[in-house]
Amino acid sequence: MKDIRELYLVYKDLKEITLIARVRNNRQGKVVSFLVLNDGTTLNDIQVVYKPETKGFDQATKARVSSIVEVRGLIVLTPGKQQEFEIQAQEITLLDQAIEDYPLQKKEHSPEFLREISHLRARTKTFQAIFRIRSMAAFAIHKFFQEKNYVYVNTPIITENDAEGAGEAFVVTTREDANYEEDFFGKKASLTVSGQLNGEAYAQAFKNIYTFGPTFRAENSNTSKHAAEFWMIEPEMAFCDLKGNLEIIEDLVRYTINYVFENAKDELDFCNENLEEGLIEKLNIVRNSKFAVNKYEEVIKILKKAVEDGHIFEEPNIEFGLDLGTEHERYICEVVNKCPTFVTDYPKEIKAFYMKQNQDNKTVAAADLLVPGIGELVGGSQREDDFEKIITRCKEMGIDPEELDWYNGLRNYGYYKSAGFGLGFERLIMYITGAQNIRDVISFPRTPRNLLF
Amino acid sequence: MKDIRELYLVYKDLKEITLIARVRNNRQGKVVSFLVLNDGTTLNDIQVVYKPETKGFDQATKARVSSIVEVRGLIVLTPGKQQEFEIQAQEITLLDQAIEDYPLQKKEHSPEFLREISHLRARTKTFQAIFRIRSMAAFAIHKFFQEKNYVYVNTPIITENDAEGAGEAFVVTTREDANYEEDFFGKKASLTVSGQLNGEAYAQAFKNIYTFGPTFRAENSNTSKHAAEFWMIEPEMAFCDLKGNLEIIEDLVRYTINYVFENAKDELDFCNENLEEGLIEKLNIVRNSKFAVNKYEEVIKILKKAVEDGHIFEEPNIEFGLDLGTEHERYICEVVNKCPTFVTDYPKEIKAFYMKQNQDNKTVAAADLLVPGIGELVGGSQREDDFEKIITRCKEMGIDPEELDWYNGLRNYGYYKSAGFGLGFERLIMYITGAQNIRDVISFPRTPRNLLF
Repeated sequence: MKDIRELYLVYKDLKEITLIARVRNNRQGKVVSFLVLNDGTTLNDIQVVYKPETKGFDQATKARVSSIVEVRGLIVLTPGKQQEFEIQAQEITLLDQAIEDYPLQKKEHSPEFLREISHLRARTKTFQAIFRIRSMAAFAIHKFFQEKNYVYVNTPIITENDAEGAGEAFVVTTREDANYEEDFFGKKASLTVSGQLNGEAYAQAFKNIYTFGPTFRAENSNTSKHAAEFWMIEPEMAFCDLKGNLEIIEDLVRYTINYVFENAKDELDFCNENLEEGLIEKLNIVRNSKFAVNKYEEVIKILKKAVEDGHIFEEPNIEFGLDLGTEHERYICEVVNKCPTFVTDYPKEIKAFYMKQNQDNKTVAAADLLVPGIGELVGGSQREDDFEKIITRCKEMGIDPEELDWYNGLRNYGYYKSAGFGLGFERLIMYITGAQNIRDVISFPRTPRNLLF
Repeated sequence: MKDIRELYLVYKDLKEITLIARVRNNRQGKVVSFLVLNDGTTLNDIQVVYKPETKGFDQATKARVSSIVEVRGLIVLTPGKQQEFEIQAQEITLLDQAIEDYPLQKKEHSPEFLREISHLRARTKTFQAIFRIRSMAAFAIHKFFQEKNYVYVNTPIITENDAEGAGEAFVVTTREDANYEEDFFGKKASLTVSGQLNGEAYAQAFKNIYTFGPTFRAENSNTSKHAAEFWMIEPEMAFCDLKGNLEIIEDLVRYTINYVFENAKDELDFCNENLEEGLIEKLNIVRNSKFAVNKYEEVIKILKKAVEDGHIFEEPNIEFGLDLGTEHERYICEVVNKCPTFVTDYPKEIKAFYMKQNQDNKTVAAADLLVPGIGELVGGSQREDDFEKIITRCKEMGIDPEELDWYNGLRNYGYYKSAGFGLGFERLIMYITGAQNIRDVISFPRTPRNLLF
């Protein structure tokens, strides 16, 4: 038995078909009746024409939206109509009837309502498009790295590190009294906020590795771009500097977008029409042009100039040392460069302890990738390779180096340049699909005071 | 600059090479000296010959085990020797010296010792082989499903379900007082023990889906096959029955093994020599023969007969209703069938509430895949499609159907046959590599009172 996606590939060579699918619509006319079916394998529906003489006609007329039917019939080409072909049913069997108050009747629903029925919303065309693109993009990322002989490492989700300042971590426990010494692991355990440190240890073993797994932040922020649970890709390359890092980030983003174009064009077109006007054009620019690169110092000059020229930022105090806000990031990539932009060489004070200090003693070999509409998509850096320097940076930033002795100590066992980055998978999917809210690119989103299903 | 894996592919066409790698061994002879190098991209080392006239000779003689060196030299074929070629160094640069007490000097280490240095053990050949095979197998699984148009779904890690009896769940919290109403999510939150229920909802949307993510059990069991954190693959297929399910499981296991044979043969050979004698032969049987299928009822008869014939089981009371132990599972697949074996149609009392009841009213359409050396590798079933029946089973098994109304309710919105399974990824890797302990196939294993790195 073929599914509808296969049918669309071979219908010209077929005369008859039997298929099982879900009813999207069922409409009785005076002479003929119409079932619109979809089985989830493609965005494209199938129109089935049936008549009183069709076997199972009575059952068919009763089939409600979301019911499952089996249809046997003839494939009839319909040139000029919206669909290229339809099925003239010979027999219809109602395999399972849906109840009357199915929540997804054929009408517009608000994103908020749909989030309350996350277990059903993937049946709508919008979420069919988004989640198929998400799946394709995930595979593209694996394929990109595997073709380059990177080793996929599942770094731990439960960790003894509490994020070394990267944000609030959830505690994992089996107790109700916070007596962690008597807890499952005999110590306080957290949900990981990043697999990077563990990944770095593996890069020292395999040269090139990547992670792709869930990460967590217990931050009480209710924005359209933050979730408590999200997926990250964190590659790490030994013997690689910041310049090599940038090349890999750019290749990865372009490869992933190209893969989605080649394998989910219908879904992209749907997103272009329904989620973001100009989406295809925006992505084509990414496919066909180099990303811009600006040093942080340049960015500060550009932003200062913008303020002088009358541009209004919520944070107008633009000085070296400023931690760029989304408004600044978006200004640089949307207004100034009009394309994805790497900002490099940030002041060391606003970046993590493990980033390699530049010769100037005030900046680090870091790079963020900013993209239009989103802001920061990727954060990366070359890592500090000097043991003494990294210990000093730990202390300066209030981190007890003892707690990370295994990590810092990697520098003692032969360590020559290592670089890597973190790509927020949901932000990439928002960027590729045009979805405006992170809650709409996660199957069952987790945000403050929101834990359903 | 080439890495060592690439070099092994093209060395015959090259005269000169420059490479950066880690020192595995450095031995001074009277006339010539030898560096053995590896960069983690392949199991194969490179031998570098250097002499007093080699540029950088003094540095080279000082390079300790685990240091990083850059070597420029000539490729010289060495037919008849262990390696097919070696490098005659023209220049050696010591890029980073390792300290003297590097823990992985060239000698045998116990698995227990190596587990204490999980951040370093991946540099040994054993763990190079295991973790490269793990990476390859993960990609093979993605490839298998993507080629069949399955949608990869990231089901949630933090969940409001507490495992519906599948085992103990960890609590996720930001509080120390167990006041979950005031907690981050406004309710009690757990780490997922399975993505199946969420996955089923998505199969109703996309027909065929799979998950591949971490799952958790807070079980205080210190065995060689249990970890608190492990990865599972959980596919779900709408419009699919138990028979179809079995075919997909068998195809998936065989496809993954074939992929590893084609892409990591060196690593498999290493495992065959060092981890499990006869490994390759065992896997070849899987590649070339159909899996056996026995109904649970048959299995009980076989086991009873075995007891009568004098076989000693720790649990010798073999009756219909027995929850098979690993000893029984291994007896069936190792002694009786000598190949992977599906056991189907288990008594409903020992299986989950969501499994479809058979006509006999006492068994369910479940199937476990048992493999030699491991026991259960996969557990699957066709799902109960009748709303009333699943509610009844919930109640009979002490589960409040209210808590799963969204899941059970899927049966009301058009639901025709759904089947799926859970494959324990680490058990698959143990099976493929011959590793005897689950702690040795997880990068940073988490077990009771063990949380390092």
